[in-house]
Amino acid sequence: ETGWTDLDVRAVDTVRVLAADAVQKVGNGHPGTAMSLAPLAYLLYQNVMRVDPSDPEWFGRDRFVLSCGHSSLTQYIQLYLAGYGLELDDLKALRTWGSLTPGHPEVHHTKGVDITTGPLGSGLASAVGMAMAQRRQRGLFDPEAAPGESPFDHHVYVIASDGDIMEGVTSEASSLAGHQELGNLTVIYDENSISIEDDTDISFSEDVAKRYEAYGWHTEVVDWRVSHQNGGYVEDVDALLAAIESGKKVTDKPTIVVLRTVIGWPAPTKQDTGAAHGSALGDDEVAATKKLLGFDPEQTFEVSDEVISHTRQATERGQQAHAEWQKSYDAWRAAHADRAELLDRVLAHRLPDGFAEAFPTFEADEKGIATRAASGKVLGALAPVLPELWGGSADLAGSNNTTMEGEPSFVPASKQTKSWSGGPYGRTLHFGIRENAMGMILNGIALEGLTKPYGGTFLVFSDYMRPAVRLAAIQQLPVTYVWTHDSIGVGEDGPTHQPIEHLAALRAIPGLDVVRPGDANETAVAWRTILGHVDHPAALALTRQALPTLDRTEYASADGVAKGGYVLADADKDTPDVILVATGSELSLAVEARKTLKDKGVDARVVSMPCREWFAAQDQSYRDEVLPPAVKARVSVEAATPFGWHEIVGDAGRVIGIDHFGASADAKTLFEKFGFTADAVVQAAQESITAAGGN
Amino acid sequence: ETGWTDLDVRAVDTVRVLAADAVQKVGNGHPGTAMSLAPLAYLLYQNVMRVDPSDPEWFGRDRFVLSCGHSSLTQYIQLYLAGYGLELDDLKALRTWGSLTPGHPEVHHTKGVDITTGPLGSGLASAVGMAMAQRRQRGLFDPEAAPGESPFDHHVYVIASDGDIMEGVTSEASSLAGHQELGNLTVIYDENSISIEDDTDISFSEDVAKRYEAYGWHTEVVDWRVSHQNGGYVEDVDALLAAIESGKKVTDKPTIVVLRTVIGWPAPTKQDTGAAHGSALGDDEVAATKKLLGFDPEQTFEVSDEVISHTRQATERGQQAHAEWQKSYDAWRAAHADRAELLDRVLAHRLPDGFAEAFPTFEADEKGIATRAASGKVLGALAPVLPELWGGSADLAGSNNTTMEGEPSFVPASKQTKSWSGGPYGRTLHFGIRENAMGMILNGIALEGLTKPYGGTFLVFSDYMRPAVRLAAIQQLPVTYVWTHDSIGVGEDGPTHQPIEHLAALRAIPGLDVVRPGDANETAVAWRTILGHVDHPAALALTRQALPTLDRTEYASADGVAKGGYVLADADKDTPDVILVATGSELSLAVEARKTLKDKGVDARVVSMPCREWFAAQDQSYRDEVLPPAVKARVSVEAATPFGWHEIVGDAGRVIGIDHFGASADAKTLFEKFGFTADAVVQAAQESITAAGGN
Repeated sequence: ETGWTDLDVRAVDTVRVLAADAVQKVGNGHPGTAMSLAPLAYLLYQNVMRVDPSDPEWFGRDRFVLSCGHSSLTQYIQLYLAGYGLELDDLKALRTWGSLTPGHPEVHHTKGVDITTGPLGSGLASAVGMAMAQRRQRGLFDPEAAPGESPFDHHVYVIASDGDIMEGVTSEASSLAGHQELGNLTVIYDENSISIEDDTDISFSEDVAKRYEAYGWHTEVVDWRVSHQNGGYVEDVDALLAAIESGKKVTDKPTIVVLRTVIGWPAPTKQDTGAAHGSALGDDEVAATKKLLGFDPEQTFEVSDEVISHTRQATERGQQAHAEWQKSYDAWRAAHADRAELLDRVLAHRLPDGFAEAFPTFEADEKGIATRAASGKVLGALAPVLPELWGGSADLAGSNNTTMEGEPSFVPASKQTKSWSGGPYGRTLHFGIRENAMGMILNGIALEGLTKPYGGTFLVFSDYMRPAVRLAAIQQLPVTYVWTHDSIGVGEDGPTHQPIEHLAALRAIPGLDVVRPGDANETAVAWRTILGHVDHPAALALTRQALPTLDRTEYASADGVAKGGYVLADADKDTPDVILVATGSELSLAVEARKTLKDKGVDARVVSMPCREWFAAQDQSYRDEVLPPAVKARVSVEAATPFGWHEIVGDAGRVIGIDHFGASADAKTLFEKFGFTADAVVQAAQESITAAGGN
Repeated sequence: ETGWTDLDVRAVDTVRVLAADAVQKVGNGHPGTAMSLAPLAYLLYQNVMRVDPSDPEWFGRDRFVLSCGHSSLTQYIQLYLAGYGLELDDLKALRTWGSLTPGHPEVHHTKGVDITTGPLGSGLASAVGMAMAQRRQRGLFDPEAAPGESPFDHHVYVIASDGDIMEGVTSEASSLAGHQELGNLTVIYDENSISIEDDTDISFSEDVAKRYEAYGWHTEVVDWRVSHQNGGYVEDVDALLAAIESGKKVTDKPTIVVLRTVIGWPAPTKQDTGAAHGSALGDDEVAATKKLLGFDPEQTFEVSDEVISHTRQATERGQQAHAEWQKSYDAWRAAHADRAELLDRVLAHRLPDGFAEAFPTFEADEKGIATRAASGKVLGALAPVLPELWGGSADLAGSNNTTMEGEPSFVPASKQTKSWSGGPYGRTLHFGIRENAMGMILNGIALEGLTKPYGGTFLVFSDYMRPAVRLAAIQQLPVTYVWTHDSIGVGEDGPTHQPIEHLAALRAIPGLDVVRPGDANETAVAWRTILGHVDHPAALALTRQALPTLDRTEYASADGVAKGGYVLADADKDTPDVILVATGSELSLAVEARKTLKDKGVDARVVSMPCREWFAAQDQSYRDEVLPPAVKARVSVEAATPFGWHEIVGDAGRVIGIDHFGASADAKTLFEKFGFTADAVVQAAQESITAAGGN
């Protein structure tokens, strides 16, 4: 039982009027759910979660995910009440420029917000990642501890809405969560049956609890609406608490509590309607609600001293819990000096000694290897050096080369297969054919903070995970995507599997590094550079097909990759006749074209530009050194859409790309048919020289 | 019962050896499923589906969707056997340049292929759209007919794999299919429990049948594996047929038949392994399989005359069925001359008389209206004129303005709500919060061919539906996306809801028109132009916020929109000092900047460029007229990433854009803070004039 006093009830009602007032003041927002979920949110922050408002970054804390991010007030008001640092003025500044209370919760912006949410489904799916990360972290740092006894144990709580449950990414992640038997995850699904098109009956009639049973979840139903047809509505918080606690006792299944609520309760005319979802209630309705709840309709943002001093006791309770935890943490440190050292390093975002030396170098080789294969070798070499690194694939492990050889799979022991052995603390992730969930899960893992995740699929299927990639960029998370089969070089699988627009579409995302290395050694430096970053995601675009491993005694060192673009092979003259800019598999075409041009008396420089974003971040003098402004004859070559390359080659330049879909044939045929040949580069170079006013 | 003879069994075994041979010949591909699903595919093409191999475009045919498109041989071999025009040489040319048998099935390329599949989940989700379209088409043309009695009745059959079932888009579409009570849809789910990472137990352990029950589907399980632990395997096709037929009798639910198979059956060593999924079996395994089945291991592509003449009887049966249908069709035509006229028009892709005149024009108005609102008015005006047009939103009807006022919702009568009335033949679609499924469903509707669909969400959530958009472009489908809230103009909802990269990311997709009209009249012309296209998709990017409706007596006619870019307001001089290129909400900033520049003695031309693709399709002379090559001083302004605009403005140009995520505040503040002001345009124009070597 919650043991709530009248003061708690008053506090919950205070939440409702604050929510109504805050939206009314700014004139827009989402009051309804914040009002009806006030008891739930209060219960979580005041009774259930182990959190310390005075130390929101405490890594032993339970995590809270508001998957229905539009109801940000649900969280902001609890942060205010519990003492995380938000004050009434912050609530008054809801959804305004520079406030701590933006429209949707933003991590790194508001203390106590563990994740940025808003796009529906993303929160719940990322919470699955948090729960998975918690288990992996425990396995890394404290695998011997009894269940519940480790300082690395914590629980993940999610509030989800009808919209979250409808989104496919939630289905993917929930299926995987059941498979992974994530007993450390509790989702409370607010089934208020209202979304923007009002009654969800218009598009949604499935049996959600049954669906989650099918996924292998523990399900609980708490129906506050049971008496609502007769106008009644009983917010039975004891039953809700009991359901949450029952769920936590089931340690080998995630729990979903289906909580049936009336949105906007108790607003007299707008409760249970779409009107309460996404608009201010209006002055009259707010006043009427206040009257109903015994608040002064003339006052706004009314919080009694009693209420706030009562709720702020959460801080003290949190500190006590934190202190308890500290004891076990200290004991753990004392017993495990080596692991504590690893933890300190990871928390400080430091790379280990020997990191740079761990990377393989690849001998020059005309036949060479695919960059996906080089990436696999890099991962294998890093396995012993960087224990915090882990990852896997959306059912393409062998194709993406994402498995660190010999590392165990991350699965319940009962779910090992002939091909994959492992256990609950394993390192190789198996996402199934669920790309968007993979992306969201990677975000959740990164948000947990003690490990570094990566995930792979075909580049063409980056489309499926763009919502997650965007959220990684918004949240500045060091997630790495291993996207292989990065062009028409895919070959026979044909147009549905051949990326054309993807490199451009990904470069357009702010804060995402898109890295397309041109040979095996560039792949190693790409990984080395990416892993040095701690505050943004990166994507590797890797080939299916073998690429020549360039002779670095003849050409410049691959270390230049770290600068995004570098002079791989220079002209003999101080000022080249033309600059050939290439990425990935087309780099060797440019190298070949340079030789042909030399035979024709044209002195070409080859610039390898695996990462436009890193190059753009260099200072102007470096960029001018690589691409001298005076040299207007330029050719870019990349087996992808030409979109976006004019910026690099300029008005006199030529862009070799492909602006239509591919075809089903072997890769060699496709490169020829679609004009990716050294001859085409040579011809474009000559055209560009003419256009630039040269010979 | 199927009544299969030994000859049918021999034909099925012939399918298996052809599949093994075809993959072995090209050296890559997916033999396993084509072998084990031979009985199912044969059953569908020879016993179940009402199709006419001699007229693959017959609109009364049942539709077939191979959701596991990688198993394209499953379909190609049946097309060959049934007589659709494929011959043995085509099978021998599998996955090679120019063949009729590409890696994945491609609509418009191989006769008998109803849909392009390959990206997992897409086929099943689009099949839901086909089934929905069938009902709408029936409602449009023949609503009075008794069930099963209309020439507009047909069934949609899907073969889906484990991968399809894992993808979230399938969950979304399946939930909606259950809600819509689509009795005309049968999915056969090939549960072979093998994917690329081998045994699916590594990532997938849900109860699929139970999940589909939760969605409201009728479920059947046919377990051919039941004796497989003891080495047995019984391909009970009678039980399979019975399950399919039982499902069809349930007319108010879609049916899923869970069919448990052994992939690669009966390959002696590779059956039931990942090795049979996506690689050639190897000569020895192919030979051993042939021996097992009583084929000559020395021969390849062995088809006995008896077998092929037997299976080609499918053509005759199909023609008979077609002839039967023709009677009811002729009767329908005779009875419904007006509807027949509509059908003929729709089949001919003709627009109706009065189409162009139906569009509203909007009076000049400084305050103006949002382009989303203008779009809503256009749709309302078109409702009576264009009955084939229908659509809706992913739960944002009111925000996207996608509802044609007064038109009924497309839902079973029992699922009407207070806000939405309608029925099974309704016109307003409610997709729920399922953007990717919406996109796939729109594709399915377009593929059915008799109606024109549109669907809406926020532009930022186009990310969720990119897989579907790409497939619309690949399949050249006339689908229209209504993407509103198209910039930081979204305002208070903040960065998760504000598109930045999306316009560029969408422009990068080949074959998709991205149209961002600058005022209400441009919106009308945009719709008019889009609806004139029949062979590719288009996206409207529309504002949340009001935009001035420009005075077209002062400025050029909005008809210029049809050319993608046009001179809205010209300079006084023959050669402008600078060209200001703008799209959407920034058009009025350019207009304002032009006035300020004039006061400063600078003579600017304003070019409105709502659609880069349409502009690029104009001949060079028109493009040079709008953007004279001699005028190097150019500024583009669009509240989105600058990525891709350099191509338009050139080396001396300036691009006004935003290359970072947005923020939560009112739109006006954001436009100012992020530099989208007439002053910024003026300043950029002056800079560009200087850079171009002007004054």
